[in-house]
Amino acid sequence: MRVLLGSGGFRTPERVALLCTTMRSFFGAMDRLLFLPYALHDHDGYVQALLERGLNAGYTLEGIHRFPNPQRAIAQASAIYVGGGNTFRLLDTLYRLDLLDAIRDRVQQGTPYLGISAGSNVACPTIKTTNDMPIVQPASFNALGLVPFQINPHYFDGQIHVRAGEELVPHFGETREERIREFHEMNPTPVVGLWEAGLLRIEGAEVHLLGAAARLFRRGEAPQELSPGSRLDFLLQAR
Amino acid sequence: MRVLLGSGGFRTPERVALLCTTMRSFFGAMDRLLFLPYALHDHDGYVQALLERGLNAGYTLEGIHRFPNPQRAIAQASAIYVGGGNTFRLLDTLYRLDLLDAIRDRVQQGTPYLGISAGSNVACPTIKTTNDMPIVQPASFNALGLVPFQINPHYFDGQIHVRAGEELVPHFGETREERIREFHEMNPTPVVGLWEAGLLRIEGAEVHLLGAAARLFRRGEAPQELSPGSRLDFLLQAR
Repeated sequence: MRVLLGSGGFRTPERVALLCTTMRSFFGAMDRLLFLPYALHDHDGYVQALLERGLNAGYTLEGIHRFPNPQRAIAQASAIYVGGGNTFRLLDTLYRLDLLDAIRDRVQQGTPYLGISAGSNVACPTIKTTNDMPIVQPASFNALGLVPFQINPHYFDGQIHVRAGEELVPHFGETREERIREFHEMNPTPVVGLWEAGLLRIEGAEVHLLGAAARLFRRGEAPQELSPGSRLDFLLQAR
Repeated sequence: MRVLLGSGGFRTPERVALLCTTMRSFFGAMDRLLFLPYALHDHDGYVQALLERGLNAGYTLEGIHRFPNPQRAIAQASAIYVGGGNTFRLLDTLYRLDLLDAIRDRVQQGTPYLGISAGSNVACPTIKTTNDMPIVQPASFNALGLVPFQINPHYFDGQIHVRAGEELVPHFGETREERIREFHEMNPTPVVGLWEAGLLRIEGAEVHLLGAAARLFRRGEAPQELSPGSRLDFLLQAR
C-alpha cells in the first residue's frame, strides 16, 4: 500500500516546493492523477486553483466530477488525489456516490493515494479528528481506514490568538490538545497531530514523517514529539 | 419562551460579572437550576468548577447526572442550564437519554433555558455551526430548535495566530467566516457569529444582544455587524 497524507497549509513557496518534490518522488513517471474535489463546493474552480498555485506538481489533474461514472473513474485511475476543504462534505459525497469501497479496494491493490487535509482525514478509520464545521451530516463518521491511526491535520500548540481591532488577543475556545484529549475520552485510537506542511509517507511497512514535526497522542499517555525525517513504522501497529 | 444563549469564553472577571448579573436578572428569585453537564466527561468535576469560578451566579446547581430519572428531572425543573464542552458529546447524550422532546416541551411552556457554548449550539435547529471536534457520532445533527437561527459561538474575525517557539505565526486553516460561508453553500439558515462573552437574551418576541458584538451571516448577503445593546427581534422571523 502506498499512501501520502498531508496536513495542509501549503501556502508558502518553500512548502509548495516540498509538497511537489515529494509528489514527484511518490507518483513517479505517470502522467495523470484522478483528483477528487468533493471537499469544496466549486469543483472546476478547485482544479483551476491547484494548477495556478502549482500544487499539481506537473501532473495532469483529471477532476472526477467530469466523469459520467465516478465509480468507473476510480476503477480505472492510476493514482488518486483527494483535496482538502470540508471533511463532512467530502465524506458525505463519498457515501452518496458509493465510492468508499472502490477507493479502498484500489489503494489496497497498490494504487497510490494522496490526501491533503480533509483528504487525510478520510484516509483514517473515522473523521472524528477533523477540525471542520459539520455543515452536512454524512451517513456515518466511518471513513476509508487506509491507516489504523487518526490524523489531526493543521495541528498547532496552545491557545490561539485572534485579531481584535489592531491587536492579537487570546481566544478561550478549546485548544487542539484539549480537543484530542476529549476524543480519547470517547475513543482508543492513537492520533497524530500533524503541523501544517507536514506529510506522512506510508509505503508497505514503512512510515516516514516529512516537512514538519508532529505530536503523537495515545490514550492515557503523555504526548510524544515526533521530528521531521523520523521513521514511524510503529504507527501501523496502532490498535 | 425565555432563552439566554451565551457564546462562552467567560474567563475574565468582567465577563464573569456580566454573565452573573444577566443570570440574576433572567432567572430572578428562584433557588435551583437543573444543570446538564453532558458536554464534558467529568460531570461532578464540572459542577464543582462552575461553583469555584462563580459561574453559578449564587444559584444552587443540581447536576442532572445525580438524578435516577433524568426525564423526570427535566419535567420537574424550574430552570434548565446547559453547559459547554463538546457539542457532539452533549447532543449524543441528549439523544441516548431521550431528553430532547422533554426539554423542548418545558421551554415552550415557559421554563427558562440558559445555554453556554455547546449549550447554545444545541438550542439551534442543528449543531451544524459548532466549532467542536466530532469525537462521537450523535443519532442526528438536528437539535432542540428553540430558536429558528444558528449560532456560531466563540466567533472571531480573520486568520488565527498560533505559537511557534517564541513567536505567533499565522495559521492557514479555514477562517471562521470561510467555514460559515461553506455552511451556507449547503444550508439556508441565518447564522449569528457571537463573539466570546456575548449573550442573546430571548423573551417572547424580543431578542437583546448583550456583552459583545456579533456578526450576522445570511446566505448570499454581505455580513451585517450587530452591536452590543441592540435589539434583534427580526431574528425570530428567520427562515
